[in-house]
Amino acid sequence: MDRVGTVGIVGVGLIGATIGLALRQRAVAGQVVGVDIDAQAIAAAREIGALDAGGSDLDALRPADLVVVAVPPDDVVSTAVQAAAVMKRGSILTDVASTKAEIVRALDERLAGRVRYIGGHPMAGSEGRGARMADPALLSGRPFLLTPTDRTDPAAVSMMTEVAERLGMLPVLLSPDDHDDLVAQVSHLPYLMAVAVVGAATDRAIGIGGPAFAGLGRIARGPVELWVQICRSNRAAIRRSLGQFRRELDRLERALEGEEPLEILLQRSRRRAPVDGVPLDKPPR
Amino acid sequence: MDRVGTVGIVGVGLIGATIGLALRQRAVAGQVVGVDIDAQAIAAAREIGALDAGGSDLDALRPADLVVVAVPPDDVVSTAVQAAAVMKRGSILTDVASTKAEIVRALDERLAGRVRYIGGHPMAGSEGRGARMADPALLSGRPFLLTPTDRTDPAAVSMMTEVAERLGMLPVLLSPDDHDDLVAQVSHLPYLMAVAVVGAATDRAIGIGGPAFAGLGRIARGPVELWVQICRSNRAAIRRSLGQFRRELDRLERALEGEEPLEILLQRSRRRAPVDGVPLDKPPR
Repeated sequence: MDRVGTVGIVGVGLIGATIGLALRQRAVAGQVVGVDIDAQAIAAAREIGALDAGGSDLDALRPADLVVVAVPPDDVVSTAVQAAAVMKRGSILTDVASTKAEIVRALDERLAGRVRYIGGHPMAGSEGRGARMADPALLSGRPFLLTPTDRTDPAAVSMMTEVAERLGMLPVLLSPDDHDDLVAQVSHLPYLMAVAVVGAATDRAIGIGGPAFAGLGRIARGPVELWVQICRSNRAAIRRSLGQFRRELDRLERALEGEEPLEILLQRSRRRAPVDGVPLDKPPR
Repeated sequence: MDRVGTVGIVGVGLIGATIGLALRQRAVAGQVVGVDIDAQAIAAAREIGALDAGGSDLDALRPADLVVVAVPPDDVVSTAVQAAAVMKRGSILTDVASTKAEIVRALDERLAGRVRYIGGHPMAGSEGRGARMADPALLSGRPFLLTPTDRTDPAAVSMMTEVAERLGMLPVLLSPDDHDDLVAQVSHLPYLMAVAVVGAATDRAIGIGGPAFAGLGRIARGPVELWVQICRSNRAAIRRSLGQFRRELDRLERALEGEEPLEILLQRSRRRAPVDGVPLDKPPR
């Protein structure tokens, strides 16, 4: 792939600005144009070097060969439909929302015949928010999940696969349903567990803290508005994941009572736990 | 308090060696003597500067004014009894185990009239193990939980309070039962939750990871042998903490189903979550 001509980014928060900055630093795009309803966000994104140009008007997306919609999950569909209305016919559109089935179903339908859509989800983030916290290092070596369907144009798959690679990420192809199922397990369930552990702790217990509790605290401090949208959009997969979690919890409680060997359960999770994203040993089977 | 003359440390793993190193660097003790059944551990602790002298024989504790027993929980009582048999009458003995009620009950009884015992638990640790990973920074600003009872000599309380302060830690006095209750909430429950989340995840889900899951993975990789001992020793408090956690989980599930407002539960934990050990806002009530 030659460099992508013009990339448009709608929503220049932490992830949008991080992608813009990485695209420019790695010369993946000839030009990066940002659109955000918040003029201060555009100013911040320009200041850190994430954009060549930016403003609040979607018309800025007219020259784009690729548009990345990086707005909160509930706004993705309406924003993508508006963006597609001004984009060149046949150009490519993706999004970065943490849930995919609902969004992909809607956009496969509504963008058909206008632009080539493929759902995306870069598995990257930090505690920071906003363009000023943008950091291309957040993307390095992380999976960029892509969720093509039988309605996805192969050109969209190949462009986004290559963009992901050139951003230093690992492109991973999954169906939207598989995506939501896996992400419920490794992202949405951990968040809800952290919320429940903090919620269950008394004020005195919170006061004495400890390293593990501080780690859960960081997870539980995620942005509530975003998490409410994620939980609603991915409710079914989260429910399944909670069911599986409760079965593990039941086994651990039986083991605590001496009804089965605790050590085996602890060893199994220790062996399977990722080390900086990579499992310690090859997982069994 | 003048500097403590001689401090003995029994068990120079991560915590024992960290305390030895901090005592020497901050000139809290005139001399630090280590005892460990593992000659390599003693060699490593001497090499990093955690000890003035060391060996495998408890006789080395004869001159000690204070002995810190830093062995795994199941070995604390027998090791402390053996150490007390050679120590000067009236000198002070403490331990660093993560559970206290069971150990303090046994040692209050068995050390009475020989040495002055007070239970201790520095809330510090890392993923590392062994003397080579020792780091006095692990102690900085962390709570040093002390668990006096009505049988504890006030001299032991005041010495350990001052030692904790001079190590840069925050001495916190709790009853052994309160200690076990609070630590179950902020340390033992988070560990078991991390084990259950990793245990519930499929191999494919573990493969895609993500920042929150990586954080839980770090917790789930704790040393299994130690955790089995902690879980057995603190079973009752862990059981209560799990009960409270399940009630929070039930509320979250009802909120996911729209039966109560999810946002309020998420906001509450976000507000109460510790920021580097300190709650974001003053906790309510």
